[in-house]
Amino acid sequence: MSRRIRHTPFTKKVEECGVTGFTVVNHMLLPKAFKKSVDEDYWHLQSHVQIWDVSCQRQVQITGPDSEYLVQKMTPRSIKNMSTGKCFYIPIIDENAGMINDPILLKLDNSKFWISIADSDVLLWAKGLAIGLDLNVFIEEPEVYPLAIQGPKAEDLMTSLFGEEIRSMNFFEFKMFEIFGKEQVIARSGYSNQDGFEIYFNGFLEGEKLWQLIWKSGSSFNISPGCPNLIDRIEAGLLSYGNDFTRENNPLECNLEKYCTNASPHDFIGKITLEKIKTEGVNQKIRGIVFSGDACQSCAKPLLVYSTNNIKIGQITSGIYSPRLKKNIGLSMIKKDYWNVGTEVIIKTADNKLTKGTISSLPFSK
Amino acid sequence: MSRRIRHTPFTKKVEECGVTGFTVVNHMLLPKAFKKSVDEDYWHLQSHVQIWDVSCQRQVQITGPDSEYLVQKMTPRSIKNMSTGKCFYIPIIDENAGMINDPILLKLDNSKFWISIADSDVLLWAKGLAIGLDLNVFIEEPEVYPLAIQGPKAEDLMTSLFGEEIRSMNFFEFKMFEIFGKEQVIARSGYSNQDGFEIYFNGFLEGEKLWQLIWKSGSSFNISPGCPNLIDRIEAGLLSYGNDFTRENNPLECNLEKYCTNASPHDFIGKITLEKIKTEGVNQKIRGIVFSGDACQSCAKPLLVYSTNNIKIGQITSGIYSPRLKKNIGLSMIKKDYWNVGTEVIIKTADNKLTKGTISSLPFSK
Repeated sequence: MSRRIRHTPFTKKVEECGVTGFTVVNHMLLPKAFKKSVDEDYWHLQSHVQIWDVSCQRQVQITGPDSEYLVQKMTPRSIKNMSTGKCFYIPIIDENAGMINDPILLKLDNSKFWISIADSDVLLWAKGLAIGLDLNVFIEEPEVYPLAIQGPKAEDLMTSLFGEEIRSMNFFEFKMFEIFGKEQVIARSGYSNQDGFEIYFNGFLEGEKLWQLIWKSGSSFNISPGCPNLIDRIEAGLLSYGNDFTRENNPLECNLEKYCTNASPHDFIGKITLEKIKTEGVNQKIRGIVFSGDACQSCAKPLLVYSTNNIKIGQITSGIYSPRLKKNIGLSMIKKDYWNVGTEVIIKTADNKLTKGTISSLPFSK
Repeated sequence: MSRRIRHTPFTKKVEECGVTGFTVVNHMLLPKAFKKSVDEDYWHLQSHVQIWDVSCQRQVQITGPDSEYLVQKMTPRSIKNMSTGKCFYIPIIDENAGMINDPILLKLDNSKFWISIADSDVLLWAKGLAIGLDLNVFIEEPEVYPLAIQGPKAEDLMTSLFGEEIRSMNFFEFKMFEIFGKEQVIARSGYSNQDGFEIYFNGFLEGEKLWQLIWKSGSSFNISPGCPNLIDRIEAGLLSYGNDFTRENNPLECNLEKYCTNASPHDFIGKITLEKIKTEGVNQKIRGIVFSGDACQSCAKPLLVYSTNNIKIGQITSGIYSPRLKKNIGLSMIKKDYWNVGTEVIIKTADNKLTKGTISSLPFSK
């Protein structure tokens, strides 16, 4: 432990709640588990409400006259018609169309954006581009620490705290709410398959106070501490940057075609390469796999996937046993000739056993 | 555990050696401790030789006609007279002269450089700049995994493996050696206060074979598995990016004046700001502190430092009890009026006790 791996405003609270492990995202602690099994946590998340310290979703704040220009330069998704108050899931790609991140973009006003990032230093990418292109922007990481409220009872809990306006919010919209005398962003969003909200909390010192406030009101909704749940995430087909895809992959391989439409007339980094890839077609894509065998715990290392005639056709990078589907499920990058839904495949498990699987669409059907 | 936090070619070997914890640097595992105390490890490192998996020191490889131009653009340190085969410690700064990284630069030839980085995505910074400036460079992270051999017996061990040429190498020089039929970089360098070498090993699959080779020859030199040792590092005054300094700090605050000389006539990012800071002088600098009280274990959170008249004057970001000096020692960013060697200060320890300390120069005298 050192300052290099940063604490969050809520770290003390998650420790009080019995966190049993952390991982590191964006040089910051992300709780990985509490004193309950992934299964128990999954069922709780399906039925009640949870509070997640996702402060590691750091914001890259871009302001100034050229801010919209720079943001647009960074993504194939058009932001021309994006309104203030909207959240956009955007691929950020490099000159080879390789994925640099898959963040949520928030438009705070015409010249103020937050890029709420997965695990890579997008701030350095944006600053490098801005300096090289001599743009008039100011790029910083603000003191904003997202706290997620996830689960079917999230709306009721959030309404009890912040009023009826919460109910009027659509998915991937945000509004401003006053918390402790300060205007704060609350979005209807979250890294789960459930309803939920993310409070983009500004104010390190009052983090514990906010947690306490939510925790207290949450008791009548059976609130529990939590973190992104692997079963729920895989069922939803939510990808994890650095794990399910990397800079080696382009957005078309990651099923992000709809954010790379030919209708985008705007210029962006990687456009020429991406158009070429689009014309030629990709050779692999992320698919679901349903597979048999012993209950999969997780994928510390990717599980290799073979065709029935023993050709290596891909790998499962996120895998787990789904207690709802009563089967193992996984996210996998699969070669073209084998990616059709229903294709039978062979998986080599962590203990080197061979087991049967079937290509599935994403998200996994409920 | 997932692919997002990457294993190294040596992870299996460090596990076999009884690693008891990992940290994460550059999205990769770095062993943090083995089955021995920091003290035991420290004394071993002073007397024998250790093998460290420092694969997380990722290389940002910059090649192509504009590679030297780009590298020079990224640092105030002049590389004009840098020869092939040299290692340079360089500050990399942004437009505000804020530290982005403090890597080791290796010049492989006139148009091929490796930037061996501390914990931030310098690759994204370099690529952003290159695209923005429209430079003719190719920037990649090669499959190179540094393995450090550190300690006073490192020269003998390395000579037994790679021949007498090892002895002829000066500190911060590298040479090419054939390992398993491939030309490999070996530098005389390392993140310790001792003599040592770093093998920039190219070839993930043969990592365990290399470890085994060194381990076998190492037995007659009392080899032990290890990792950067906190006592040794602090005694040496070696800084840790993200911990002892961040993007909030400029290189002059980090005692890197000698890499920011006015004699540098070259252009680099942050030059105007850095020159201004140099003219005005900085208000804080990294200093050593020797302090009394209970034996300091480490600094999960920085320890606040006060003047004797109770003004907050800085914080200790790396601290530990030195069994050699028989005192606690720390690295701290200290305000101008108090940074003179010998100044008496007060430290608030992790358990909120006040204890006395004295400002010291760096490195700590042996």
